[in-house]
Amino acid sequence: MNDYPGPGAPIRSGIPDHGRVPKYYAVKGELDALLDELGEGGVLPTERDLATRFAVSRDTLRQALRELLIQGRVRRRGRSTVVAGPKLEQPLSLASYTEGVRRQGRVPGRNLIGLETFAADAVLAGQLGLKPGDPVWHLERVLLADGERVGLESTYLAVARVPALDREFDPGASLYAYLGEKLGIGFGGADERIETVLATPREALLIGTPPALPMLLLHRLTRDEDGRPVERVRSLYRGDRFSFTTQLGTPA
Amino acid sequence: MNDYPGPGAPIRSGIPDHGRVPKYYAVKGELDALLDELGEGGVLPTERDLATRFAVSRDTLRQALRELLIQGRVRRRGRSTVVAGPKLEQPLSLASYTEGVRRQGRVPGRNLIGLETFAADAVLAGQLGLKPGDPVWHLERVLLADGERVGLESTYLAVARVPALDREFDPGASLYAYLGEKLGIGFGGADERIETVLATPREALLIGTPPALPMLLLHRLTRDEDGRPVERVRSLYRGDRFSFTTQLGTPA
Repeated sequence: MNDYPGPGAPIRSGIPDHGRVPKYYAVKGELDALLDELGEGGVLPTERDLATRFAVSRDTLRQALRELLIQGRVRRRGRSTVVAGPKLEQPLSLASYTEGVRRQGRVPGRNLIGLETFAADAVLAGQLGLKPGDPVWHLERVLLADGERVGLESTYLAVARVPALDREFDPGASLYAYLGEKLGIGFGGADERIETVLATPREALLIGTPPALPMLLLHRLTRDEDGRPVERVRSLYRGDRFSFTTQLGTPA
Repeated sequence: MNDYPGPGAPIRSGIPDHGRVPKYYAVKGELDALLDELGEGGVLPTERDLATRFAVSRDTLRQALRELLIQGRVRRRGRSTVVAGPKLEQPLSLASYTEGVRRQGRVPGRNLIGLETFAADAVLAGQLGLKPGDPVWHLERVLLADGERVGLESTYLAVARVPALDREFDPGASLYAYLGEKLGIGFGGADERIETVLATPREALLIGTPPALPMLLLHRLTRDEDGRPVERVRSLYRGDRFSFTTQLGTPA
């Protein structure tokens, strides 16, 4: 019997004979052990020192470091690279982003990018229970956790339903709190879909990530307690900083 | 009022002044329109023809094609590149992989990589309700949809609970059907966590994807109807072929 490699660890049994481990990947394993020693927030030696230590070229070392960055195992801090903490675990629930982040002991925040009206096309109109051409709000905000940019959220709402959004709503606050407290709109349910996508150049710029970083994209259609659609949301989260959790019950 | 750009489309409003669109990304937009014209299964012209058509270098064209491949917008078929269909939408539920894939009109399958016993470490033992050192099964299978490799699944089960797994169970079949029909184990609930990760070289080899393709990784801990842990599962799905859906109700 072998040792169990630990949850989430690459599994080493049964490597096919033609499955040679590339050099950068072997270095990544050695770096991983070093990161464990340094601990969260620990500062990595320079690239030159690391390349010498592992007896590899700077290019090979950089490839290993790039993957560790994309995975969220290390982070840039100014000119240094430091050991990152664990990913945030955001529950998939009807609770707001604000509430999910607070539960993890972090300070949530949002920065307004834009609030505009558009004419709904046929697809969006169908989703929101409107006629094509009806006006909808597009609220776009950068999501923050402890002041760090971690995501980008686009929310679409019928103007007829939330007519004073641009005058009454503080875009730094929770939209769900506004809808509930000001307009008495409670949520009854939502359909959600999760996929992984690459950040577009504009998204990478707004969130402050390297371009082509894998992101988690959530599509949500939320309904009120009477089953009427309230909002369509497209939330993009940094794949190196977020994971999502859910509790499954017996299938209906 | 502007036109609504369509759900999921890159949103063009509010591009910061310093946010120039890179050349490869502009080409990607043009390719996207071409893919729409060609339709699912349509074969792309050669790289040389495309580079001439869009008046860019082969390198620029390849960067655009690489991102479209990673996103699952196009696929390789032999030496050609063809327009891919939509991602599979797998429900996050207690139902099995087999059932989820069938519901979408695809043929599910599994190829056995290995079935071995290990001594549980403290973490796994805690999760499965065992003592450290107790024997556990590690069942590793490649997931198929319509004969195509789409994922890789590792399942950990207590040997004491499923002693004859290696003799009774057909690894090409549904484990959940075996547990239910042979052993009378029904599922009561599960905790699940989703993140995006890069495929390791071994995983990429087993699934047949380019290395460093973003994947969706699901961690699951399943309990029976009495709340006792049954299995710990680590399922890796191709990010270019899968999305996950869930229906949210009122928070408990």
